[in-house]
Amino acid sequence: MKQRPVRIGMVGYQFMGRAHSHAYRDVGFYFRPQLTPVLQAVCGRSEDAVREAASRLGFAEYETDWRRLVERPDIDVIDIVTPNDTHAQIAQAAAATGKHVLCEKPLATTVDDAGAMHDAVVRAGVSHMVCHNYRFAPAVQFAKRLIDEGRLGRIHHIRAHYLQDWLLNPAAPMTWRMRRDVTGTGALGDIGAHIVDLARFLVGEFKTVTGSLRTIVSQRPLFDESGTGMVDVDDATMFLARFACGAEGVFEATRFAGGNRNANRFEVNGEHGSLRWDLENMNVLEVYFTDDESGLQGFRRINCTERDHPYAGAYWPPGHIIGYEHTFINLVSEFLDAIAKGESPHPNFGDGLRNQQVLAAVERSAASGSWETVET
Amino acid sequence: MKQRPVRIGMVGYQFMGRAHSHAYRDVGFYFRPQLTPVLQAVCGRSEDAVREAASRLGFAEYETDWRRLVERPDIDVIDIVTPNDTHAQIAQAAAATGKHVLCEKPLATTVDDAGAMHDAVVRAGVSHMVCHNYRFAPAVQFAKRLIDEGRLGRIHHIRAHYLQDWLLNPAAPMTWRMRRDVTGTGALGDIGAHIVDLARFLVGEFKTVTGSLRTIVSQRPLFDESGTGMVDVDDATMFLARFACGAEGVFEATRFAGGNRNANRFEVNGEHGSLRWDLENMNVLEVYFTDDESGLQGFRRINCTERDHPYAGAYWPPGHIIGYEHTFINLVSEFLDAIAKGESPHPNFGDGLRNQQVLAAVERSAASGSWETVET
Amino acid sequence: MKQRPVRIGMVGYQFMGRAHSHAYRDVGFYFRPQLTPVLQAVCGRSEDAVREAASRLGFAEYETDWRRLVERPDIDVIDIVTPNDTHAQIAQAAAATGKHVLCEKPLATTVDDAGAMHDAVVRAGVSHMVCHNYRFAPAVQFAKRLIDEGRLGRIHHIRAHYLQDWLLNPAAPMTWRMRRDVTGTGALGDIGAHIVDLARFLVGEFKTVTGSLRTIVSQRPLFDESGTGMVDVDDATMFLARFACGAEGVFEATRFAGGNRNANRFEVNGEHGSLRWDLENMNVLEVYFTDDESGLQGFRRINCTERDHPYAGAYWPPGHIIGYEHTFINLVSEFLDAIAKGESPHPNFGDGLRNQQVLAAVERSAASGSWETVET
Amino acid sequence: MKQRPVRIGMVGYQFMGRAHSHAYRDVGFYFRPQLTPVLQAVCGRSEDAVREAASRLGFAEYETDWRRLVERPDIDVIDIVTPNDTHAQIAQAAAATGKHVLCEKPLATTVDDAGAMHDAVVRAGVSHMVCHNYRFAPAVQFAKRLIDEGRLGRIHHIRAHYLQDWLLNPAAPMTWRMRRDVTGTGALGDIGAHIVDLARFLVGEFKTVTGSLRTIVSQRPLFDESGTGMVDVDDATMFLARFACGAEGVFEATRFAGGNRNANRFEVNGEHGSLRWDLENMNVLEVYFTDDESGLQGFRRINCTERDHPYAGAYWPPGHIIGYEHTFINLVSEFLDAIAKGESPHPNFGDGLRNQQVLAAVERSAASGSWETVET
Repeated sequence: MKQRPVRIGMVGYQFMGRAHSHAYRDVGFYFRPQLTPVLQAVCGRSEDAVREAASRLGFAEYETDWRRLVERPDIDVIDIVTPNDTHAQIAQAAAATGKHVLCEKPLATTVDDAGAMHDAVVRAGVSHMVCHNYRFAPAVQFAKRLIDEGRLGRIHHIRAHYLQDWLLNPAAPMTWRMRRDVTGTGALGDIGAHIVDLARFLVGEFKTVTGSLRTIVSQRPLFDESGTGMVDVDDATMFLARFACGAEGVFEATRFAGGNRNANRFEVNGEHGSLRWDLENMNVLEVYFTDDESGLQGFRRINCTERDHPYAGAYWPPGHIIGYEHTFINLVSEFLDAIAKGESPHPNFGDGLRNQQVLAAVERSAASGSWETVET
Repeated sequence: MKQRPVRIGMVGYQFMGRAHSHAYRDVGFYFRPQLTPVLQAVCGRSEDAVREAASRLGFAEYETDWRRLVERPDIDVIDIVTPNDTHAQIAQAAAATGKHVLCEKPLATTVDDAGAMHDAVVRAGVSHMVCHNYRFAPAVQFAKRLIDEGRLGRIHHIRAHYLQDWLLNPAAPMTWRMRRDVTGTGALGDIGAHIVDLARFLVGEFKTVTGSLRTIVSQRPLFDESGTGMVDVDDATMFLARFACGAEGVFEATRFAGGNRNANRFEVNGEHGSLRWDLENMNVLEVYFTDDESGLQGFRRINCTERDHPYAGAYWPPGHIIGYEHTFINLVSEFLDAIAKGESPHPNFGDGLRNQQVLAAVERSAASGSWETVET
Repeated sequence: MKQRPVRIGMVGYQFMGRAHSHAYRDVGFYFRPQLTPVLQAVCGRSEDAVREAASRLGFAEYETDWRRLVERPDIDVIDIVTPNDTHAQIAQAAAATGKHVLCEKPLATTVDDAGAMHDAVVRAGVSHMVCHNYRFAPAVQFAKRLIDEGRLGRIHHIRAHYLQDWLLNPAAPMTWRMRRDVTGTGALGDIGAHIVDLARFLVGEFKTVTGSLRTIVSQRPLFDESGTGMVDVDDATMFLARFACGAEGVFEATRFAGGNRNANRFEVNGEHGSLRWDLENMNVLEVYFTDDESGLQGFRRINCTERDHPYAGAYWPPGHIIGYEHTFINLVSEFLDAIAKGESPHPNFGDGLRNQQVLAAVERSAASGSWETVET
Repeated sequence: MKQRPVRIGMVGYQFMGRAHSHAYRDVGFYFRPQLTPVLQAVCGRSEDAVREAASRLGFAEYETDWRRLVERPDIDVIDIVTPNDTHAQIAQAAAATGKHVLCEKPLATTVDDAGAMHDAVVRAGVSHMVCHNYRFAPAVQFAKRLIDEGRLGRIHHIRAHYLQDWLLNPAAPMTWRMRRDVTGTGALGDIGAHIVDLARFLVGEFKTVTGSLRTIVSQRPLFDESGTGMVDVDDATMFLARFACGAEGVFEATRFAGGNRNANRFEVNGEHGSLRWDLENMNVLEVYFTDDESGLQGFRRINCTERDHPYAGAYWPPGHIIGYEHTFINLVSEFLDAIAKGESPHPNFGDGLRNQQVLAAVERSAASGSWETVET
């Protein structure tokens, strides 16, 4: 089968830009996508910085105005890795010119924006995905398969937290992630969105939520040492949820959980079994079945690096683990195949919109002190 | 120092009766309490059963009417291990006759009852404790010491769950723990009360809560196979909490978490460090300090079996673990010493009352769908 | 069934004396042995110390000469918890007067002594056991059951180590465990003997061994601070073994493994599965089966606290763990039942002798630098 | 700084060929080596297969005769990923034409061959490394740094095993790894060589060893189903070792340890602390210090993904783990930098030779049943 090139234009080039660029570069080694990604151009406002980024990340060219990038006829995909407040405008413009769109999460800063983005890509008939990469850990995909096969039966509980600690030190400086106008919400939208996505993936739709948003440190030094800035988003959130399927869930996202560098963890309990996962040891899925022989019941610690585990066959033999970046490689592999087929696999902008609706409901509940329905 | 006897009268003899009896028998071997417990009499309604229990547990005599037990002049302590709805009456009667009282948790089925019990013991000037035994795991006491010493600084978070799975099978029969008139609440009052106590012990007073109570399986077979009974209490609960100190917490208690036989776990995150504990491996406390040398930061896995760890010196050399029953031995040791001194160490009936107020607030919030203030 | 008393005379009263005494006191609470142990008399050379020990441990009387104890007609069982070099004489004298004998491990300091002890108890027709208590952890007994049922098939490997760290500090003072004349060997005979026993229990007889004995710190301060003493036994040993069944094993015992307070661990690998155990978390057995469904293969973490697990039914509900001391309670329960039946359950003096033969072969190999056959 | 190309010619293209190719492709993204690897040509005997491999792995051209590859003037580096028996001839020929050489482990099948290879590269003055990739896990490099800084003091013990289970099933077919003429030794040379390298890296030179080689399944089906072949190498080995520094070690390598897919683990105990590592969770180093505050001593679980950890800064933020393939990327990064500087960093052919000498001593001891000196 002949491989065709697909030309990538990326807006932004920081942490996520690096993760996405690497995935495009590496995906062809592990997978055989019909489309071969070509790093055509990267875009940033500072010419010096974007020139350096293009060289470092492997893009052939650069732009300093995203509108120019979006309009270039030699670009097939717009990949959006900019701060949250810019996603909507860029994605809609990209869709309007017929580009396929991969967008970082959260999809937007408001449900309205997310809805407009979703409308735009659907209207344009382009392929679209939102980059909830953790779905694409083999262990998480395997968890989903077990649930879909009914191995857990009806789901009773999910408990998920995403614990980090990089803001624990009050001297940690302001970033755009602490400014409401740029980011929408703080821990909620950044890491809470990930566990909302994992819960939607594994348990289904959220129905109602009640929760809390808290700013533990509200003044932080500016990067340029010119003074302090005000943190006007949450740096910790917690919420309860009821799901359409009848399950209930407990969620927490924080940057103040000392010793937890990147503890994205969940446990799902169903009628017939349970599952546990932890990003910091992401190749392992712990699985419990109630119908295991009496006396021999216990969580099995499964290293999801075998042929039977999703994506694992593309990598190394059993017991040879993969890492964080491979979640992006797997996602990009799906996205490229989807473009070739004219599809938009989950999590797509529809999922991004649903995610945003959950975040919005948590925000409303934090204000109202009551359970809020997730509007759809 | 001369040891004096203290004569125990126990009402009830099931699971908790067994745990308490063992503790009285064993405490003198490990500790040197001024008072030597004497298992004077046990009380139950069925003569055959209570006679057998007396023999099995080591009580010299038995009674079939708790009022007679309470009135016996040869009893110094009334230990209440009966179903929850009977605690109030027995405890008040015991206090009225000047008996010291040890009562199983939850203290009562209502705040009013708990308040009356507290008033009664205070008025009578007797020693009183409520049996939140998990406080007395050496690792938990050590956690408390670290917090009190300021090693964690200001507390930001607690997340605690108590997960069991013995009701996961819908064929598991009804017990009194599933009947509201006897038990008050279900998972909330039984195992939720334990994590409320641990949170109060470690983080301080609850201010407001919002939560949910759920009955997953509402019809269960009766023990006598005569039909089915209705479960009218929660078999799963979850709630959020705000503490007086500014911390926030996430709590969950359930009997439907497959593979979790007795997973009473917490994590506390503070300004300067974090702590983790798990009842199923109860000798271990995981401790993280933010001021550990850079590059060498990580949770330390501490086997709390050393001289430096509370109660551990009474047992075996480092690395030789103790088990569930030793939490009761430690508690009873404290209670006996307190009786000798005329004190009522924590957790006493005041703590039981505060605990009940938290449970009541969770119940109210489950009904109102809003945050409820813990009344004091 | 009527319970009959069995009168215990214990020689020695230190660490092991305490563990045994507690087991006698507690066994009747958990088990219903036909024989009720009575702590009749304890023996030690220092009258003040043994008087205090009798009071502390609960013995009715004391003796200062073990020969007197052994000859007392009101003693049924001699329990030997003295330093190793005294076991042989006491045990033989006890057997000669028709006493049942429980002896701490290692059975003796030489194979000859162990053989003489074995002959003596067999000749006398008394019940005898050697106190390899770790066999009696429910998880270890469950491991044995799985192996006996053929669940692992043919055994290929055992790797076992017993790591401690209490001698890591060169300032740790001399004890009798560091003097060859008293102890025979050091780490080998003290903790190595335990893993030899576990291996014999699980895998069967040792055929040949080759190993090393090392004294890392050879001068230590005397307890009385009068100077230093010479350590003339190993404080670390390692050896390879071949078993009669064809399995091979790797063994290590040391007091210099920092951070390992009491890490008695083994892993057994067979044709159809594997087992792992660790004393520091002794309620858990990890079990792997090769015939588990593909993709769902992983070590199961089984909390051996359920009715299906040996001895566990005597204690608490699932998930409520037991500790170090319960291994002694279980062992004593077996011993009492065996006395009633006129039996000598494993590990008996025959096992102690075989154990000593393995230790001797390791000693010989350390001297010869070659594989040595375990003589029988 | 200008980057110069370095042209790679690879002999072989199976598992290791894939791992090396990926590393050359990916290294420039994470590191900024002075030399940019160019995948010039790959070599294999079957034209169809090597053509496909070239396309799949990204080589520009292919050869079917390694002698032709070695003589090509447009090749700077010969990378040898063929079966062990071919390493010597290829490496010597490559050195003779002035090529730098990266060779898979074990360096050769005999000490003589390894010595000749070492002589050849030294004589030719080319850069050379042997691909003991596990040294290059950040956690392992960090372990080495701690030891070099004296944080563990004098080393007392190392225990290392490399457990796999892919031969447990007797129906697993023959491969070249089971034929002595091709592979030298079996589990010993393949995976045992890795733990020998890790031990040399961390503890220093081996002085004497004694061990065993065993073939558990000696007949296996041929791949082409034409019958069975004879396994004439070990599929399990175990050995004891004494080190020049005074430490002692216990080693085991096997393919019959069910449930252990790729369990390459070590623990090092020193005067002042201990270290533990496990390849299956390779980002974590467990570290214990004896001078941690009393009561707060325990193994710290360090996720070696921080700026302070070797290589980790090249990848992702703290808590975002890397995987198996990154050990090769790190190694190749070192190799490229070394070529630029005219150096041969460890592990080089000198290390490969020393490793071979250890393996040979184990082989001799397995035959002699005695301790054998590692010849140098």
